[in-house]
Amino acid sequence: MVSNTNIIEFKVNSDEKYGSLVALEAMRSVPFDVRRVYYIYGVSKEETRGHHSHNELEQVLICVNGSVTIAVSTGENEEEVVLDSPGKGLYIGPMVWRVMKNFSSDAVLLVLASEYFDEADYIRDHDRYIEKAKAYFQK
Amino acid sequence: MVSNTNIIEFKVNSDEKYGSLVALEAMRSVPFDVRRVYYIYGVSKEETRGHHSHNELEQVLICVNGSVTIAVSTGENEEEVVLDSPGKGLYIGPMVWRVMKNFSSDAVLLVLASEYFDEADYIRDHDRYIEKAKAYFQK
Repeated sequence: MVSNTNIIEFKVNSDEKYGSLVALEAMRSVPFDVRRVYYIYGVSKEETRGHHSHNELEQVLICVNGSVTIAVSTGENEEEVVLDSPGKGLYIGPMVWRVMKNFSSDAVLLVLASEYFDEADYIRDHDRYIEKAKAYFQK
Repeated sequence: MVSNTNIIEFKVNSDEKYGSLVALEAMRSVPFDVRRVYYIYGVSKEETRGHHSHNELEQVLICVNGSVTIAVSTGENEEEVVLDSPGKGLYIGPMVWRVMKNFSSDAVLLVLASEYFDEADYIRDHDRYIEKAKAYFQK
């Protein structure tokens, strides 16, 4: 995997009649305190989201309905992760560039985040990101 | 509303191309620290879930896809809340009996909870619930 990313397989408790339940626990299966939970839906198939990195923020992404592809990279390495199951989470730590794409029309992307929204934590310029990432990963 | 329940309208940030984003913040729009996040899906239309109360647990329920009806009651009062929008949350505090029903086939019910799972916090017997609720709400 790309540095500072990880796949988390969550336990899916399934019953034919009563459906399925997946539970995520802060500081346990999710490796941080959860300050913010957000979900994205209704994205056109040809559109992409993301195109940024964070200095500090940690997130876990799960596609709880439909499917979406997350491209993660550190400048050095790049990988595409298809999220197409409510039991599959993608952890993204600091200093990882991410692009969300190929949203299915019914996709609901759930994100758990370690901090509240803070514009100062975003790196939105890719050239600046590459520079910062080089320094960060050489540590 | 039934005591210890409340509707929370979350802000839906919508864009025709880039879709919609709804963010929930612990200790802000969600009135507790979020220890556990779970989601339920694939429930048969004729089935129900819940049928219990909690001594302490606080939760916020949002149907992020499809729709579901939540019947909440305190023994004294009963109400049915239809969750059919990703922007509509139902807060359920302590000592509220809840039944989830009328799951649409595509329903994904997201729940944010104030504590980890703790069987000792559940009241699963309805007669015992009525007794405890009577004492609790007379406080």
